[in-house]
Amino acid sequence: MSAEILEKKKTLDLRKKHIGPSCKIFFSHDPIKIVRARGQYMYDEKGQRYLDCINNVAHVGHCHPDVVKAGAEQMELLNTNSRFLHDNLVLYAQRLQATLPNKLSVCYFVNSGSEANDLALRLALQYTGHKDIITLENAYHGHVSSLIDISPYKFHHLSDVEQNQFVHVAPSPDVYRGKYRADHPNPAKAYADDVKDIIGRVHEKGGKIAAFTAESLQSCGGQVIPPPGYFQQVAEHVRQAGGVFIADEVQVGFGRVGTHFWAFQLQGADFVPDIVTMGKPIGNGHPMSCVVTTKEVAEAFALSGMEYFNTFGGNPVSCAIGLAVLDVIVKEDLQGNALRVGQYLTELLEKQKEKHPLIGDVRGRGLFVGMELVKDRLKLTPATAENAEYFLFCRRLKEQYILLSADGPHRNVLKFKPPLCFTSEDADLVVEKIDHILTGSQSCKMTTLYQQEVGGVP
Amino acid sequence: MSAEILEKKKTLDLRKKHIGPSCKIFFSHDPIKIVRARGQYMYDEKGQRYLDCINNVAHVGHCHPDVVKAGAEQMELLNTNSRFLHDNLVLYAQRLQATLPNKLSVCYFVNSGSEANDLALRLALQYTGHKDIITLENAYHGHVSSLIDISPYKFHHLSDVEQNQFVHVAPSPDVYRGKYRADHPNPAKAYADDVKDIIGRVHEKGGKIAAFTAESLQSCGGQVIPPPGYFQQVAEHVRQAGGVFIADEVQVGFGRVGTHFWAFQLQGADFVPDIVTMGKPIGNGHPMSCVVTTKEVAEAFALSGMEYFNTFGGNPVSCAIGLAVLDVIVKEDLQGNALRVGQYLTELLEKQKEKHPLIGDVRGRGLFVGMELVKDRLKLTPATAENAEYFLFCRRLKEQYILLSADGPHRNVLKFKPPLCFTSEDADLVVEKIDHILTGSQSCKMTTLYQQEVGGVP
Repeated sequence: MSAEILEKKKTLDLRKKHIGPSCKIFFSHDPIKIVRARGQYMYDEKGQRYLDCINNVAHVGHCHPDVVKAGAEQMELLNTNSRFLHDNLVLYAQRLQATLPNKLSVCYFVNSGSEANDLALRLALQYTGHKDIITLENAYHGHVSSLIDISPYKFHHLSDVEQNQFVHVAPSPDVYRGKYRADHPNPAKAYADDVKDIIGRVHEKGGKIAAFTAESLQSCGGQVIPPPGYFQQVAEHVRQAGGVFIADEVQVGFGRVGTHFWAFQLQGADFVPDIVTMGKPIGNGHPMSCVVTTKEVAEAFALSGMEYFNTFGGNPVSCAIGLAVLDVIVKEDLQGNALRVGQYLTELLEKQKEKHPLIGDVRGRGLFVGMELVKDRLKLTPATAENAEYFLFCRRLKEQYILLSADGPHRNVLKFKPPLCFTSEDADLVVEKIDHILTGSQSCKMTTLYQQEVGGVP
Repeated sequence: MSAEILEKKKTLDLRKKHIGPSCKIFFSHDPIKIVRARGQYMYDEKGQRYLDCINNVAHVGHCHPDVVKAGAEQMELLNTNSRFLHDNLVLYAQRLQATLPNKLSVCYFVNSGSEANDLALRLALQYTGHKDIITLENAYHGHVSSLIDISPYKFHHLSDVEQNQFVHVAPSPDVYRGKYRADHPNPAKAYADDVKDIIGRVHEKGGKIAAFTAESLQSCGGQVIPPPGYFQQVAEHVRQAGGVFIADEVQVGFGRVGTHFWAFQLQGADFVPDIVTMGKPIGNGHPMSCVVTTKEVAEAFALSGMEYFNTFGGNPVSCAIGLAVLDVIVKEDLQGNALRVGQYLTELLEKQKEKHPLIGDVRGRGLFVGMELVKDRLKLTPATAENAEYFLFCRRLKEQYILLSADGPHRNVLKFKPPLCFTSEDADLVVEKIDHILTGSQSCKMTTLYQQEVGGVP
């Protein structure tokens, strides 16, 4: 199939006609048509190159030749369900397991982060026999029905959504803007105590906790990095109540945080979740994902008597691709690169913060970085009056051929989550453009140009 | 990756260690290790060929070169999310739309039949503002939480499952073994009236019908073919109550039934569902699926204000593969082949029925065929005492290198759902083996060899 077949206008017209209007497009006022991509670069129909700072799915770089080769070769040989024995399935499970603490040893292969998080809930409910779930404010766990319920990110701004009675929302452990901040003597304990209080209130009403679930770092919620020790203390409270801890690594796993392979490991070696869910980067864009849990949870799930069958999950092609992704991460030291370039990018952004008052906070681990825009650094007023600027910000960066997006409950957090092959030169380039735009914007108010863009980019 | 890396025993050991025990394997007493496949044949690690009568996912034939080529070429070029404009997405939506009645014009691309059916429910609930769902006895719609609730196939045999209060189960429109049979003057009306009665009872309790959902032909439920006119009458009752009709084509769409591209079209040209879900065969094994609905339903869903974003859904690789599958179906006249070979297979099985009293019923449309085993043709007693024989049946067929499976509420229906390139010679071969086994089994009781095998194969 050639790179471009239709004129851009025709593509857009057909999209309006045949694709659900709930499916949003980037830069809706002037969308981009991308026809090819390689590494950290995407190219439009005219051959114009864009620097990609947002595609956390193209983890080892767009169209990585090793991943493409592994997929293509296996597609030619066999692609069928996991009811037949196949080496790719077990070798991949073994390799994934080796990246995790020993007790997380049993895998279920599925097709998306949403399928993974839904299965994680089913495992937790079956294992505990309980029904109540604690989730975090601004959390995003997926698009299937059960996950909308535990994703305040999806419903908190909508008026007519009925909240599931078994779902309880704990404060986001955001030490910049949250309930307990950097100046609090022990924010980890304070946030964990809030979870403990919720458990108490659930018990008072006769409920029983099945699970606490959290993204190891909140992404759509605004690039939030929970204080170390928080997960351990939450896990202690939750396990005491008979529940399990689900760590959602869909957006942040596979070495992105640089120092560790999994973001939950940032909390310390003493923390082990009961269930881990994976997704987005796992297949560099191939539709696949995984849930890993303990033998005990897996056995309880089997005892229900209900078989678990997933038509495409764990097929030989997905597993070949998954293995290739793991190989590339090691071979090209992408975790190390995430650490080095992420640190460099963060330092550059810190310098921008010194220069531009609109930047309230810069936070990140590896190539997971957030830059929060505020109107007032003391009151932390989100730069909502400046929304025009921040939306224009992304739009003006796009005009400079740089793809960046904004998210968080106030849509004032710029999210950096590029392919892990991102270089320090790429970091220089994006920060130079940011500097240029922020310098210009101070003398030129652009509020009239305000237009709602797609902000949320899970 | 070479075809076999580990010894079979090692593969099995690793599988036991690292794959969830709820994930069942075919022929668990002696599983097959398949290392490659082509067309309607699969090959084990020793090069032994198996005739595949069960893989309805490998729709145009395992590893079809055109499909592999389309996938591999697109993987090399670009694989990203649908927030960028791309021709594959809109061309594929347009091509899919062209196979459907005009009013079904809006697509949502997702990753699995389960994601499709879950989204269909969300669309129905949002569009109608109602909550009650009517599903069929023995239905199977997927493995995510919301679908277990509407899949009696998954829970009817389990004692401790709490049924969702908004889910109502109507009788399966099975004219062989169901409530109204072939001798009933108007089974279509009778079964539809049962749905009408359910609607009445829901209304009495203050409920409101959001949707009636059914597989266009029940597969796991026992290869059930509803009487023509049933869907029209159900749709009339459901729409009168403000609900929508969801046709689940995940297992039976894309030309398998021979006379039509979609199985719901067997009901007559005057029947148009409000929502159609697709899956399994859509990508010949690639993880992808689709929901198609009307403009009205799509617009109501968008009005909720909640964006729908699916990370992998509708990516350029999935769409390239989907387009290639549609091309091959046309180019090789696979729908015509399904009609011709399906008819031939059904005739051969009918002759077996004349010869072997264990065969109670042979029914099918195209290459979707069921053969039901009974102890007594008048009482229709399922061949449960003969379970040993029928399980042994599949096992003995496997020993003859033929893959066939059994399903239905009594696990006494042999299901034929091969890749659509199945030939009349393949039909001759499988029926010859069936004849041989049934002839032998009458003189040789094999009950001591009984062992529970995997039966359910969605």
